[in-house]
Amino acid sequence: MIDLVAGLLTGNRRALARLLTLVENDQGDAALAELYPHTGKAWIIGVTGAPGTGKSTLVNEVTKTYRAGGKTVGIIAVDPTSPFSGGAILGDRIRMRDLSGDPGVFIRSMATRGNLGGLARATRDAIRVLDAAGFDVVIVETVGAGQNEVDIVRTAHTTIVVEAPGLGDDVQAIKAGILEIADVLVVNKADRHGVNHTVNALKMMLELGHPADKMSHHGRTLAVQTPAQPPANAPLWQPPILQTVAAEGKGVADVLSAIDQHRAHLEHSGQLALLEAERIQTELLDRLRDALLAKIVRAMPPDTVAELVKQIQTRQLDPHSAVDALLRFL
Amino acid sequence: MIDLVAGLLTGNRRALARLLTLVENDQGDAALAELYPHTGKAWIIGVTGAPGTGKSTLVNEVTKTYRAGGKTVGIIAVDPTSPFSGGAILGDRIRMRDLSGDPGVFIRSMATRGNLGGLARATRDAIRVLDAAGFDVVIVETVGAGQNEVDIVRTAHTTIVVEAPGLGDDVQAIKAGILEIADVLVVNKADRHGVNHTVNALKMMLELGHPADKMSHHGRTLAVQTPAQPPANAPLWQPPILQTVAAEGKGVADVLSAIDQHRAHLEHSGQLALLEAERIQTELLDRLRDALLAKIVRAMPPDTVAELVKQIQTRQLDPHSAVDALLRFL
Repeated sequence: MIDLVAGLLTGNRRALARLLTLVENDQGDAALAELYPHTGKAWIIGVTGAPGTGKSTLVNEVTKTYRAGGKTVGIIAVDPTSPFSGGAILGDRIRMRDLSGDPGVFIRSMATRGNLGGLARATRDAIRVLDAAGFDVVIVETVGAGQNEVDIVRTAHTTIVVEAPGLGDDVQAIKAGILEIADVLVVNKADRHGVNHTVNALKMMLELGHPADKMSHHGRTLAVQTPAQPPANAPLWQPPILQTVAAEGKGVADVLSAIDQHRAHLEHSGQLALLEAERIQTELLDRLRDALLAKIVRAMPPDTVAELVKQIQTRQLDPHSAVDALLRFL
Repeated sequence: MIDLVAGLLTGNRRALARLLTLVENDQGDAALAELYPHTGKAWIIGVTGAPGTGKSTLVNEVTKTYRAGGKTVGIIAVDPTSPFSGGAILGDRIRMRDLSGDPGVFIRSMATRGNLGGLARATRDAIRVLDAAGFDVVIVETVGAGQNEVDIVRTAHTTIVVEAPGLGDDVQAIKAGILEIADVLVVNKADRHGVNHTVNALKMMLELGHPADKMSHHGRTLAVQTPAQPPANAPLWQPPILQTVAAEGKGVADVLSAIDQHRAHLEHSGQLALLEAERIQTELLDRLRDALLAKIVRAMPPDTVAELVKQIQTRQLDPHSAVDALLRFL
């Protein structure tokens, strides 16, 4: 383990790949504890959007532009496993061809194994590995499918939502909720018919919405007080709506500028530190919950839970009283 | 509280409404424990699908058909709050006009307050209230937006996914994952151009997919053994693809037949009991986790968590070691 982490910190790509595999298989705890002090330097960018928006092409072009400026980029492509989807793997191969051979880029695909919670954890940990490995920028790309966007918000510093003209009003209706998590909106394929319609629709939706307070919009209720809120007079971030034709590299520089501006906004307003504190607290309490449960389950006779489940199922006992019964084992 | 539960059990609609409000405000624990023995009788149907599929109209027609057969129906319309959406409220008003005055129907809208976990809990508890109130069927309708479908699967006995022609291939791509949770597929607006295309696309997607084992596809990893799996030779359910024109009542009887067949399948194969046991266990462990966290937080000096968060944020401590430090307070 020490060898792997030492290898990671000196830029060994094989150590990096092996650590990512460990993390994906939920066997990376010791290594993660060890590399944690070396994290906190990368800027983490979440990119989400419906299939057909050209999201992966945009990520490629953003990566190339960062590389042209001398920055290194790690990419995590998150693909919620579905027996019906195989797109991410294909996209990944195309991307590999485009960016391969560049030691300043590292790409990794991650898929769920039927457990969204597990995927969120694995993604968070993979980001830490890439961060500790010294990548300046880590991009997490995910298919816009609900829970995953929320997870992106929980890990990314800057979240980019990609749209495209001609996907229809219905698509925009479905994805309305996603606008609330966007720091930067990109209308890709902006050479297509209907681009003004899409831009105007997004503008209207942004105006209708309240400026999202992303720090209190998500997460479960915490048992302890939340970190301090930003001062009431803190400047609000207005998500810009940018137009790109990623396949031709058009407008990509503007995307990088918007990311830079958003970063400057978070840093100068003090919101970055607050955001990080809230995320760390949520993670800490989630981990504590799981550790406590594991501890109490070890203290119970083997069939305790199964027996209570049976009593609840036959309505002899209600779930609330069952918890009281289980707490006795503490 | 006793009065409310007693009122609920004798069919008092005002008691029902007040209990639903309590549950929505997370103040229903005592009442829920009391009414729990009276639950377990209703058949719970989840209905989900993109906006524009005519989902609400279908729910209305399904309800009328159940009523014509003498069955009572409770409806919960789940609307993840978004500053951009107001559709559910409108739909609810139209629906109210259509079904109001019938004492065999009760409709309730529920919205998140920025917390999906809270909504899932409130929906589950509201279903229990309607179940205890004696409704034969409880329908939970939700906008197809990711996490909510998963929540439906976790509460419903039969999950109906509604599609419609002409929403475009992109929509179907987005919603591919949703097919895995469908017990019954309905192509509504089947008088529209493109219905065959939609039906064929769904067929193809179903054939591509493995028969979903819904019992192990979701949920977090459990700290105790999962309930027994169904026998390997248990018959598999093949989701039928039905066509309806809900606005004219066409095909709705077939939807009810499919629900009946799915129910018979779950009951006769023994899968219903296994499904319920797994859900009860998940709920019990989730509640236990939260109770344990609340207990340990009460045992800590006030600023313990905040202090550890600060140390993690400055990279003096890693999250894994911080949990070990907190477990000392047990």
